[in-house]
Amino acid sequence: MNKIYIFLISLFFCCTAGASLAQDQRPGPRSLPESAEKYRMGIAGYTFIKIDLDKALETMEKVDVHYLCIKDFYLPLNSNADQIAQFKEKLKSKGVVGYAVGPIYMKSEGEIDRAFDYAQKVGVKLIIGIPTYELLPYVEKKVKEFGFNYAIHLHGPDIETFQDADEVWNHVKDLDPRIGMCLDIGHDTRNGKDPVADLKKYHKRVFDIHLKDVTGSNKQGYSLEIGRGIIDFPAFIKMLRKVRYTGVCSLEHEKNMTDPYMGISESMGYFRGVIEATK
Amino acid sequence: MNKIYIFLISLFFCCTAGASLAQDQRPGPRSLPESAEKYRMGIAGYTFIKIDLDKALETMEKVDVHYLCIKDFYLPLNSNADQIAQFKEKLKSKGVVGYAVGPIYMKSEGEIDRAFDYAQKVGVKLIIGIPTYELLPYVEKKVKEFGFNYAIHLHGPDIETFQDADEVWNHVKDLDPRIGMCLDIGHDTRNGKDPVADLKKYHKRVFDIHLKDVTGSNKQGYSLEIGRGIIDFPAFIKMLRKVRYTGVCSLEHEKNMTDPYMGISESMGYFRGVIEATK
Repeated sequence: MNKIYIFLISLFFCCTAGASLAQDQRPGPRSLPESAEKYRMGIAGYTFIKIDLDKALETMEKVDVHYLCIKDFYLPLNSNADQIAQFKEKLKSKGVVGYAVGPIYMKSEGEIDRAFDYAQKVGVKLIIGIPTYELLPYVEKKVKEFGFNYAIHLHGPDIETFQDADEVWNHVKDLDPRIGMCLDIGHDTRNGKDPVADLKKYHKRVFDIHLKDVTGSNKQGYSLEIGRGIIDFPAFIKMLRKVRYTGVCSLEHEKNMTDPYMGISESMGYFRGVIEATK
Repeated sequence: MNKIYIFLISLFFCCTAGASLAQDQRPGPRSLPESAEKYRMGIAGYTFIKIDLDKALETMEKVDVHYLCIKDFYLPLNSNADQIAQFKEKLKSKGVVGYAVGPIYMKSEGEIDRAFDYAQKVGVKLIIGIPTYELLPYVEKKVKEFGFNYAIHLHGPDIETFQDADEVWNHVKDLDPRIGMCLDIGHDTRNGKDPVADLKKYHKRVFDIHLKDVTGSNKQGYSLEIGRGIIDFPAFIKMLRKVRYTGVCSLEHEKNMTDPYMGISESMGYFRGVIEATK
């Protein structure tokens, strides 16, 4: 009998506690627009070059973005295992995953070796790199050895090599299929190209994407909040769906870098609004 | 001859200066998505209740929004002509137009008189008001006298009167057509109503709109960044077009009010992304 009483009393308290909980419970935000897509939203580390890691992670939390491409100013290439573990723990405590490293300039076999070792220690399987043309065979050798994807960052008219998607494609198309590109849609546009068409053509070798908007289709075009420039985001987002892109779309915000917060959130808002409206 | 030389020399300098100017000229941001719409984007003053006017205007500049609904904490109802002139001059220097005043609570004929006099001194023809039911005949008398539009702010389940668009409509439909509503889409939703359907039904009496998103269709639903809640913004923006709404869509951001900046820009970005993607 005692057991039955205890059971009934417990049941009573459970029910009333449950009812009170239900009364206090408020509906939360709905799932993010990209949760129905095959890709994820991220932030490219360069966005945070002028602000510290705590502020960067707080910013990511505010815009509800959980994938970070790790730039070496937060985690130097020569970091030891402890430093890497601490860094990853800090990211984890804020719900952030470091999904790749880079962009990393690699001008020698030694620098390539170092980058691959670094990626392995960090525990990612994607490196965003800027190699020289001559070093591509060595990059291919390392890709085969490590089994990583290697995305060459294209950088528009400001540098001499790997300016746009066509150029990266021409240099990698006969190499191991794990060598491809980080499609920076701003720099591709500034080099006179159409990132929507390039995503369509080269999607099998697009392993990462840098999102930004730019004001013009040449060197004078500059980077600003998504939606304020000339890139056709509705078309781009439809193409992401069409080619079934499964990587990360990482915002690389390059305006007011000491105070990038409102620009970051405006850009994320705009991109997500377009995702939602083109569903 | 001298004159011809002077002319030729002037022409030479003009041409070289022109060429150098063209070389330095960089393409600017493109026009805002709403520039092709009949309505304008604004900010409802309440958004700024915890921050000072300078910071508010800087924020509006950053998000490229130029219409403000003036709340009395920036310009008290008893302001004199000089104070009003100074305030308007400050707005003008930042490219901002105060397009309306309110919301203003009006619980007596005296308070209605004061609000209409205030609006006239401020130089706007739209008052956002919260009157009592009993005072509506007096509001109508004043509307006829001043020729202003009077938009009753609907406030959802948190207050007793004018909770949603249906209720405002029922109280104003037989009054002067210049008495209508400020359709607060968040509060309308929190009162279990559909703001898209309500905009369609009542658009002839919708003189102002408060934009926000909310997490639920009842009192427990709370306000947050546009795009994170349950309101269907693609449908709402299509309806704005369909009914040819010509007023202002004013963001009323009510989350983290001491630090609303990222929320404001995320909301504006999202809304503009949806405008662009539904064109």
